[in-house]
Amino acid sequence: MISVHVPLAERSYDIQIGQGIVSALPEWLPDVLGRCNHIVIVADQRLETPLAQTLLESLSAAGYRTGLVTVPSGEASKSIAQADRLWQALLDQRSDRGSAIIALGGGVVGDLAGFVAATFTRGIPLIQIPTTLLSQVDSSVGGKTGINLPNAKNMVGCFWQPSLVVIDTETLSTLPARELASGLAEVVKYGVILKPDLFAYLEEHTPAILSKDPGAITHIVAESCRAKADVVSQDERETTGLRAILNYGHTFAHALEADGGYGKYLHGEAVAIGMHLAATCALRLGRIDATLVSRQRALLERLHLPITFTGHQPEQLWTLMQHDKKVQHGTLRFILPDRLGHVELVTGVDRQLVMDVLNHHL
Amino acid sequence: MISVHVPLAERSYDIQIGQGIVSALPEWLPDVLGRCNHIVIVADQRLETPLAQTLLESLSAAGYRTGLVTVPSGEASKSIAQADRLWQALLDQRSDRGSAIIALGGGVVGDLAGFVAATFTRGIPLIQIPTTLLSQVDSSVGGKTGINLPNAKNMVGCFWQPSLVVIDTETLSTLPARELASGLAEVVKYGVILKPDLFAYLEEHTPAILSKDPGAITHIVAESCRAKADVVSQDERETTGLRAILNYGHTFAHALEADGGYGKYLHGEAVAIGMHLAATCALRLGRIDATLVSRQRALLERLHLPITFTGHQPEQLWTLMQHDKKVQHGTLRFILPDRLGHVELVTGVDRQLVMDVLNHHL
Repeated sequence: MISVHVPLAERSYDIQIGQGIVSALPEWLPDVLGRCNHIVIVADQRLETPLAQTLLESLSAAGYRTGLVTVPSGEASKSIAQADRLWQALLDQRSDRGSAIIALGGGVVGDLAGFVAATFTRGIPLIQIPTTLLSQVDSSVGGKTGINLPNAKNMVGCFWQPSLVVIDTETLSTLPARELASGLAEVVKYGVILKPDLFAYLEEHTPAILSKDPGAITHIVAESCRAKADVVSQDERETTGLRAILNYGHTFAHALEADGGYGKYLHGEAVAIGMHLAATCALRLGRIDATLVSRQRALLERLHLPITFTGHQPEQLWTLMQHDKKVQHGTLRFILPDRLGHVELVTGVDRQLVMDVLNHHL
Repeated sequence: MISVHVPLAERSYDIQIGQGIVSALPEWLPDVLGRCNHIVIVADQRLETPLAQTLLESLSAAGYRTGLVTVPSGEASKSIAQADRLWQALLDQRSDRGSAIIALGGGVVGDLAGFVAATFTRGIPLIQIPTTLLSQVDSSVGGKTGINLPNAKNMVGCFWQPSLVVIDTETLSTLPARELASGLAEVVKYGVILKPDLFAYLEEHTPAILSKDPGAITHIVAESCRAKADVVSQDERETTGLRAILNYGHTFAHALEADGGYGKYLHGEAVAIGMHLAATCALRLGRIDATLVSRQRALLERLHLPITFTGHQPEQLWTLMQHDKKVQHGTLRFILPDRLGHVELVTGVDRQLVMDVLNHHL
């Protein structure tokens, strides 16, 4: 018997954050894309005009061959059928390994276009230009791409790091208030799990944030990206367990979203409720005192986020939680805070305690 | 404007090669799979009995929950439809991140099951148990996985390194002579591009190899895997250009396969013809002398491999070569030898010279 050893290694990227910076994209491309000379923009249908057109023009002016494919808005686009359509569209546009993809839109477009970039000719460069706060602080950073199977969200996908993330906070100018709040839930999450200063900043600058003050938005987006980048760089592929802390509030949130048929809540709304439920669990377990629960609750409420739910059966939520993708070997794990800015992975949380917390919120 | 930097890293694996070693698999699994406790075997339909059953029993005896999914034999199985079917089968068998896949079969099963492993919950461990010589010396090592789009082979896929490759040369006992020869073409390739000693070994031990002498087979498989591992470890994702040398003979081969409708040649047969064509090009360019062309030709013929073709129009082959996936920015690149054991990437080869070489072989 003979053993042959195969040693291996990977890449880094930048996240550019600022007001009106998307116009600077062509300047960054030579460093980021190397010899790529063909760029296909995969855009949310709603963004086809004018941002995608402006981008297409500036890329053409910079000498790139360009293409545009639009994707219907909404979670239903994260499907095998849409991925198949995009793969075929790339082929039809004579794409090859000298092509790159720009994902222009929210999380749905980023996840779908990212999966297609990860898999077309075994991977072509991806540039994320997230246009919702949620995708700016969460899905565009960290390299998670994917599509859904029937009744199983994000079940198929790849870790595929973008070559560049461009966060132009100007794209938020037309973002509805409810979607802004949804993104803010993830910002609160970073505060609770890692960044007490960010949590305090949110408390102190709530009006500026809700009015989309450019300085305040840029600050909280950058702090969120730093937090996520820090975790992701230590656990790129969810192997060490560290990345799991990003799921604070998410085990409850996923159950609420699934039980609500994915139309009832925006993701951040479900996360806000989930964080309140998780913090309440932590309180009942004696891991934190009531101050943190009420501080988090007050901040979420000032950001116009929900903290309670109606219309769900706790037993059904519990069942759904057992099917969460993060469940390993049948063991449900909760991310629970032990102080502001620090969380731990907790297994073996008593079913009855969780049911009590869920019932309390009916 | 604020920039955030994200640094990253990856994994290694072993290839075990020997006679009858598949029975040792359960001993290796704890080290290789860590906490995985569920293994799904994706097997070529023809192998369901008895090898897959034997493996299932030994895995069950070792305490693993197991499952089996079979795939129809043949290239048509490298499809989105089959990938979709496997993803759904994994879900139906309650697979999660604690699950792993064993690909049991030739290149089709390895590529398809590998792609599914690479993408199910963004990647679960993959063990390759290749059962054809071609897949043992080529596709099972190096991490290339993928499926075909209509008229575009391997257009969708991932680089996904296996956690372990088990090459049991006993699985070759029933391999038809034509398929054995097809695998030997890739072994000859390693000799020409990197390993003069392997080339000489093939010349000196042709009868032992053709009669599947275990020692000779183990030696050439191990040397081939070492060659491929060496190249892959220096260019895991085809970014430095080194990995391109593995495509010696393949630009011609892919055109012959495409023009022949993928049913005319076994892959190694097309590669054998392609290597002879490439060596002839190198001779005409004055890069090598006639001795290497005739040595390679004699070895291929002794291994019962073709070196000429009929029934193809050179113009059509040239056109198909322009569409090879390895073409970048419209530039066709040939891998041509300059001495035994060394090849170079050559661009700008004159169309007329290639046409002359192709016509000479009509």
